[in-house]
Amino acid sequence: MTNRYVKDFPKSVNIVEVGPRDGLQNEPEILPVETKVAFIEGLAEAGLRQIEMTSFVHPKAVPQLADAAQLIASVTQQPGVVYSALVPNVKGLERAIESGIQRIAVFTAASNSFTKKNIHMTVGESLKTFEQVVQKAKQAGLSVRGYVSTCFVCPYEGDVDPKDVFEVTQRLLEMGVDEVSLGDTVGAAVPTDVYRTVGFITETLAKERLALHFHDTFGTALANVCAGLELGIRTFDSSAGGLGGCPYAPGASGNLATEDLVYLLARMGIESGVDLAKLAQVSGNIEKQLNKELPSRQLKRLKTLNSLPVSS
Amino acid sequence: MTNRYVKDFPKSVNIVEVGPRDGLQNEPEILPVETKVAFIEGLAEAGLRQIEMTSFVHPKAVPQLADAAQLIASVTQQPGVVYSALVPNVKGLERAIESGIQRIAVFTAASNSFTKKNIHMTVGESLKTFEQVVQKAKQAGLSVRGYVSTCFVCPYEGDVDPKDVFEVTQRLLEMGVDEVSLGDTVGAAVPTDVYRTVGFITETLAKERLALHFHDTFGTALANVCAGLELGIRTFDSSAGGLGGCPYAPGASGNLATEDLVYLLARMGIESGVDLAKLAQVSGNIEKQLNKELPSRQLKRLKTLNSLPVSS
Repeated sequence: MTNRYVKDFPKSVNIVEVGPRDGLQNEPEILPVETKVAFIEGLAEAGLRQIEMTSFVHPKAVPQLADAAQLIASVTQQPGVVYSALVPNVKGLERAIESGIQRIAVFTAASNSFTKKNIHMTVGESLKTFEQVVQKAKQAGLSVRGYVSTCFVCPYEGDVDPKDVFEVTQRLLEMGVDEVSLGDTVGAAVPTDVYRTVGFITETLAKERLALHFHDTFGTALANVCAGLELGIRTFDSSAGGLGGCPYAPGASGNLATEDLVYLLARMGIESGVDLAKLAQVSGNIEKQLNKELPSRQLKRLKTLNSLPVSS
Repeated sequence: MTNRYVKDFPKSVNIVEVGPRDGLQNEPEILPVETKVAFIEGLAEAGLRQIEMTSFVHPKAVPQLADAAQLIASVTQQPGVVYSALVPNVKGLERAIESGIQRIAVFTAASNSFTKKNIHMTVGESLKTFEQVVQKAKQAGLSVRGYVSTCFVCPYEGDVDPKDVFEVTQRLLEMGVDEVSLGDTVGAAVPTDVYRTVGFITETLAKERLALHFHDTFGTALANVCAGLELGIRTFDSSAGGLGGCPYAPGASGNLATEDLVYLLARMGIESGVDLAKLAQVSGNIEKQLNKELPSRQLKRLKTLNSLPVSS
């Protein structure tokens, strides 16, 4: 049989697990710190090597993550796993450094309307803020991840020009950000968007320093991951169970579920290092704590088919 | 800006709407014939050009579709729209011919364990049965569609050999079937499966006579559609609202939702002829009649964002 149609996909990819931060900050329920500790430790045991644990935003803005420092102090960190926390400004960075976290993340977007509504700054103003944050973080020996939201579609402006995505990404890399995660915030992107925008960017910028962050709101996340793989991107963000973000209706997905990403990769013969059954058990526990059904397809399947034992 | 990463996708595709048959036969609720008539007429008004209306299986086996003849007689057919009905055997074909339908569909699979459990025949036996059916249908001036289930994964046998898919597809085409629809019954396929199996088949068999039928059970349907488009396939099956088949849990998808397919295609610049808002209204009405939330992502979005008017 011919191998003519077997594509040159990478042998392995990195998954950045954002459930504890991007997921839980969007869940109405505030979980106790012990539950989050068990969640994060479980994720590392399931094989996730990069975990965004929490955020040093103002506790009043995101009460779900108000226990950031306590959480970081309580998690038993595994060697070989990189733990990170989001930081909105210099004040947040100071708290992050004090917490002993190794890696921080900063957050901007490719469209001004979105950053204005979301972080009350223009894209340019946010980059100025982050220049200081990144410099101080680097001086303190931390590595830095940058998120760029609305890389394909802005909920206020519509289609986003790939050049705008390129410019903000380049600025972040130039100021010392180690990896930039390009996000489809609305979940509206399709593979042609990925080919166009990510293809354009990777003509100039190093693929190794880029990650893709898709939402499965319209069911296109895995199609977009495949487009990214084809373009040579090797790092993808996802959220255990599909935690976080039900923008339209209960049961609708926000973040791409890590289980669904792991399934796709495994069946494509691409190594992620994650044990799907273990991960589903960890996500199943959080689902129970939140008392709501999480959108992950594989989580549903494994719960039903194997009567997955979920400890309480 | 470069166009280097803009792929050579087709300008237009054909959607075969299977909701009234493949969808409704898997819904526990039996809808009144008037509701189905309005559904099918609405689908044609929304721009669908191929609609599988019903099935001439034994009414006791599928009571949901026991009104097949009455339904076909009651629908006001639109010029340019091809309506079809599933036919399991010669007896069913006779009823189909009597009903005046233009096109029938026959149903087999690529794995023996599946056909044995599902239609109580081996693949070979089913092909013998259909040889007679196809011949008589052709003599009566009908066109014929063939479904091949389990083209990638069999729930009993696991991975399916592309050669087995090739053989059954070739046999169906040789006996006069006009178009063969290759189905991912379990919903477990990923793009590499599509490249391998469909790529292998299209080396010998005409792409124009093949369709792909994906289930979104694990969220891979649209990724698989993109792989199919890349291989030059131009016909895809889907089900309005994602009707039919919740194999694992409520809210889990079976059939790919037509709305989600139409969204993907439209954003990729590929013409399908379907008006998404009109279609969502038609599916919204059926959702109301079935009194359950259908899995289509776009249906959720349009209901929530636009407060879609759904007539009762």
